Amino acid sequence: MLVVLTGGTGGAKLVQGLSLEINPEDLVIVCNTGDDFVLHGLQISPDLDTITYTLAGIGDAERGWGIKDDTFAALEMLGRYGGETWFKLGDRDLATHITRSRLLREGVSLSEITDRIRRVLGVKATIIPMSDDRVETRLVTAAGEISFQEYFVKRHWKDEVKEVSFAGAERSQPAPGVLDAIRRAEAVIVCPSNPVTSIAPILAVPGIRKVLQATQSPVVAISPIVQRLALSGPAHRLMAAAGHEASAAGVAKAYADFLDTIIIAPEDKDLKERIEAMGVETVVSSIRMDSLDDKRRVAREVLASLK
Amino acid sequence: MLVVLTGGTGGAKLVQGLSLEINPEDLVIVCNTGDDFVLHGLQISPDLDTITYTLAGIGDAERGWGIKDDTFAALEMLGRYGGETWFKLGDRDLATHITRSRLLREGVSLSEITDRIRRVLGVKATIIPMSDDRVETRLVTAAGEISFQEYFVKRHWKDEVKEVSFAGAERSQPAPGVLDAIRRAEAVIVCPSNPVTSIAPILAVPGIRKVLQATQSPVVAISPIVQRLALSGPAHRLMAAAGHEASAAGVAKAYADFLDTIIIAPEDKDLKERIEAMGVETVVSSIRMDSLDDKRRVAREVLASLK
Repeated sequence: MLVVLTGGTGGAKLVQGLSLEINPEDLVIVCNTGDDFVLHGLQISPDLDTITYTLAGIGDAERGWGIKDDTFAALEMLGRYGGETWFKLGDRDLATHITRSRLLREGVSLSEITDRIRRVLGVKATIIPMSDDRVETRLVTAAGEISFQEYFVKRHWKDEVKEVSFAGAERSQPAPGVLDAIRRAEAVIVCPSNPVTSIAPILAVPGIRKVLQATQSPVVAISPIVQRLALSGPAHRLMAAAGHEASAAGVAKAYADFLDTIIIAPEDKDLKERIEAMGVETVVSSIRMDSLDDKRRVAREVLASLK
Repeated sequence: MLVVLTGGTGGAKLVQGLSLEINPEDLVIVCNTGDDFVLHGLQISPDLDTITYTLAGIGDAERGWGIKDDTFAALEMLGRYGGETWFKLGDRDLATHITRSRLLREGVSLSEITDRIRRVLGVKATIIPMSDDRVETRLVTAAGEISFQEYFVKRHWKDEVKEVSFAGAERSQPAPGVLDAIRRAEAVIVCPSNPVTSIAPILAVPGIRKVLQATQSPVVAISPIVQRLALSGPAHRLMAAAGHEASAAGVAKAYADFLDTIIIAPEDKDLKERIEAMGVETVVSSIRMDSLDDKRRVAREVLASLK
């Protein structure tokens, strides 16, 4: 059994590759919920949904979010009523948020809801939110303190970020099964997700970092940064804002206390020595995942690194 | 200014006719909310929506509910998640319920929300729910006590109804503006809606029946029953269940304490004498409203009866 720590889009690519290279029932995916937010009175969990839709084969791989061929009739009408339309909620996607919101109000936990949804959609891998408690990634910018979705989707990551924090993290608990899965895992894979806003929120939930440090099984990460740029999104900018070097070496350093191996791009092979000096092994391999073939190839590379 | 008391489908036809025959800004429509219910965690007000959509010109006149040309992508997905699908919520329609639910949770009253929605949709007539408080029409059947929507939509009015009650009515208050509108109205029109489940809930809200009895302006009703059958729906069955005669005379009797005139169908002209003996005047006229022309003609007939 493998445990995968992931955010949304970037992580979904590797998760999809892994699910095709091994028995998906052997995957336990621990997913970031720091980007969860409420819109139109509905509870939205963008990363959980992206991972679930991707593994269900209904995700829109091109956009990296939502359900493919979804329609936007409800959103247009919500806009007429004065509702926010910057977060593109499709009609089918909306059913997920309506169902999640109803069940949460009925007292069902987010992890139980996540499990029901993935089963209905035929996903064989286990998907667990990092916590059933509310942990919210907050970004301090010149425009004030904003949520990740406001920064990322609404404001197109144009603000300079001065500080990143995870409101509620100290009082949160890992969702049922998270710690145990990491303890029992044959290996832990840290996806090429944003280290600051996708992986750090997971690590901020008390107990998770500790079991990662303690496990005897290999922990391998895939760098989301090639040279000084994120493969997608604003990871390089947020790395700098959070006080890390915006490079594969910075990623390795951020995870060095629990990481055994990091897979870095050929363009970054000059970082090998610096990373290995931190006690982290390196594998140099192409880590871009544009096609499904790429995703499977990187997944095989990750699996090979565990041998 | 005219006040109109109405439920959904049947009443919407006359309301539409009236809005085309007089300045719609002179209409104050007091609408039944006894059929309101919660589905998928959303607050649904079927009669308010039917009236609003009809007057906005986006109602589906053929079906008598929902928005015309609406799609049902979200509903199909809600069904996959195990949600109920007997109440056909369209994607655009869903935006209304999402918006209403959010605003109610934010503490905005149903009457304020109803007003905002009708304005956004360009409706010039004033639409007021009978009450901002929860009044729920409950039907006692052999299958147990059920809500109106369960009886009407889910179970296709196949149950024998033994009793009808309006839970919460005694503690409810008329929505702001209802009593005042009736007091100031030049006339009050009781739509050909179901007397037991559309008009009786309105009359059950303390104070409304009293101002109807007290007004010096004419109060005119249009019979929803021709011979012993409702023009549409189960009004005749429910009349019997509620202890009324299932006929235009039964309708006149149910309203006799405040009614001046009832418009009945030519097929029922033999009831004239019995109705007039109750102190209610009769106008005999075709009251079927299949086409838009019919709706306008019946509206003109109603307006003429007020002279």
